[in-house]
Amino acid sequence: MASIPKQEYFDRIAKFQANIRNAGLDACLVHGNEADFANIRYLTEYWPTFEAAGVFVPAEGKPVLLIGPESEKYAMGRSVVPNILKMIEYRESAEPQYPGIPVAHYADVVKMAMGDRPLRKLGLVGYSVMTLPVYMSLRKELPETELVKADETLLPMRYVKSENELACMREAFRISEIAIDAILNEMKVGMTEFQVIGIAQREIYKNGGEYEGHSLYCFSGPRTNNAICRPINKVIQANEIIQLNIGARVGGYSSSVGLPVIFGKFEGLQKDLVEFGLKAHIKTMELMAAGKPAKDVVINWENWVREQGYGDYMLYGPCHSIGMMEVEQPWMESVSNYDLAENMTFQVDTFFSGPDFGLRWENGVRIKAGGVERFSEKFMKVIEL
Amino acid sequence: MASIPKQEYFDRIAKFQANIRNAGLDACLVHGNEADFANIRYLTEYWPTFEAAGVFVPAEGKPVLLIGPESEKYAMGRSVVPNILKMIEYRESAEPQYPGIPVAHYADVVKMAMGDRPLRKLGLVGYSVMTLPVYMSLRKELPETELVKADETLLPMRYVKSENELACMREAFRISEIAIDAILNEMKVGMTEFQVIGIAQREIYKNGGEYEGHSLYCFSGPRTNNAICRPINKVIQANEIIQLNIGARVGGYSSSVGLPVIFGKFEGLQKDLVEFGLKAHIKTMELMAAGKPAKDVVINWENWVREQGYGDYMLYGPCHSIGMMEVEQPWMESVSNYDLAENMTFQVDTFFSGPDFGLRWENGVRIKAGGVERFSEKFMKVIEL
Repeated sequence: MASIPKQEYFDRIAKFQANIRNAGLDACLVHGNEADFANIRYLTEYWPTFEAAGVFVPAEGKPVLLIGPESEKYAMGRSVVPNILKMIEYRESAEPQYPGIPVAHYADVVKMAMGDRPLRKLGLVGYSVMTLPVYMSLRKELPETELVKADETLLPMRYVKSENELACMREAFRISEIAIDAILNEMKVGMTEFQVIGIAQREIYKNGGEYEGHSLYCFSGPRTNNAICRPINKVIQANEIIQLNIGARVGGYSSSVGLPVIFGKFEGLQKDLVEFGLKAHIKTMELMAAGKPAKDVVINWENWVREQGYGDYMLYGPCHSIGMMEVEQPWMESVSNYDLAENMTFQVDTFFSGPDFGLRWENGVRIKAGGVERFSEKFMKVIEL
Repeated sequence: MASIPKQEYFDRIAKFQANIRNAGLDACLVHGNEADFANIRYLTEYWPTFEAAGVFVPAEGKPVLLIGPESEKYAMGRSVVPNILKMIEYRESAEPQYPGIPVAHYADVVKMAMGDRPLRKLGLVGYSVMTLPVYMSLRKELPETELVKADETLLPMRYVKSENELACMREAFRISEIAIDAILNEMKVGMTEFQVIGIAQREIYKNGGEYEGHSLYCFSGPRTNNAICRPINKVIQANEIIQLNIGARVGGYSSSVGLPVIFGKFEGLQKDLVEFGLKAHIKTMELMAAGKPAKDVVINWENWVREQGYGDYMLYGPCHSIGMMEVEQPWMESVSNYDLAENMTFQVDTFFSGPDFGLRWENGVRIKAGGVERFSEKFMKVIEL
């Protein structure tokens, strides 16, 4: 099974430390939780569950993994960073008090990571998920230290994928296609949306996936009009549109394959939008190549959709990056100001919305010279069951 | 399928508003995310995915659900609270900019919820998961408002369960037992831990579960010594201890059934601790009844374990509350200062740790007069495959 070798984590930490120095920071504190664990796992391979986690990385010195009071053995067995401290700030949200279990404070962390070197300026990474208990303890225990948002020291490192990262992603997409195949073979009218998800979950784990790559989607009928949604116990009917978005996770890396299907025939506007949606999906892929400005892909795609007469059905831009999270930075928006580069990986995500239905084509691609490598394409076709 | 009727949400909000008034607050802002969604769903039935969410509840006036920019249709279809505002503070952690999508600010929220009444003191609920973007916007946009941690206005409402909540939990435990049954029938030497999880996931969704109740556990061999852990692609061997903790989620409510099993025979210290662990598990249940001080259960149980000569193998206290989260407030610790009350629900969680293995018995119970109702007991027995 594809995975990230230990040395790659050390290389990432060294590069991150160089970025910290270049940003004029003395250290960064990285935050993650059960659902948003990517930055923590990227640096340490540690993946919290029930509890949250942090990584304190000094500009010079040794990184320290910060965990909740219950995860010590788990973290010691999993983290490639050997220095680990238990802290109350990363405990479960139920806030147990853990009488008798000693915990560290941020001053201990600084001492372990950077000895007596001064901590004047600390960058906060994973700012969008960093919690108040972490922030308030930093303010209280390190009152002289300036705190600044510093996502830019780490997040861009995740944009361009290594060969090992690409191997994990290719494997994740392969398993997602296996799961879709099983659904198409076994799904029946009368099943609930939940039961369809169960087929996918079975196949993901059976074939080596470590978890879902994102909350899996099976929505049917008018519920397909939700851009974001969760499955419910609604029974699937004949002649209604069914939206599937299925993603496996391998070695920390996510995937998703999405398509609309139907028991019966797509008809009228639904048929028109399903077919045009697939054309628009392929159009996005044709617009992408190393060196192209990201915003041009969006602007050219949106203009093309409007020219074709489908502007009213368009909801969102056509792409976002995929990696450890199914949705991660950078998005591709009309305001984006970066160029596509080789080995960036994107989820081409084509959503069209009708009056009482929606549909979404989703496949992953790798940027290369002159175009893209498709991570998945088996289900880039109109399927009527 | 068991669920919470709409009126129960309105009753919860009315009670929460009374608590807000009694605490001398003008309003509370409640926070939740994908993984820690309980407080949001408890008040609105809305369950975020990809994005985070908030609920602004005034002492007098109308609550407002706060969502990310992509979830409007989903939230309108799901939330029992009809007032909904999109805010950038609850966007995905990838921080898309959403050009052209209008978003609200906290001043708009206050206006919608409480008109021109003054907001002098705002309680923060779900403080342990509340994020910096939310906090910094509050500080900037409501500079005159005092912010205070106020979890006590909402979290204790979740301690004692209603009949509808209990129905969801009984159903979730029933499905967890079905999933364990399937594992015991299908698990084979040579399977990976991941593949065992796949069997459970299939059964959870097949039988009406809406999701896992917690990250599912299958650990084998020395890995069973982790109190908290995640499954990996390790192959299961004969004659090694295998730990299963499987939980389904129904109507927002979690469950978990845990037991150690083996292909072969438990022997030596392992056999001793597995058998004693089950006795200690039952002992905890015998110590629990309405009216008993929570800390007495812990102290009496720990003393009993020591008297029996197993003190060195004991890691954690024997119980924590279960409900929407598999682990939620209140924990049962030697420092707890509350009494058990009828219809509180606990996860009896008995972990013993040997030199190179561990084992955990887990079952849920409801507190009643004179004892407990067991939500699950089918697998409270030593199983050798």
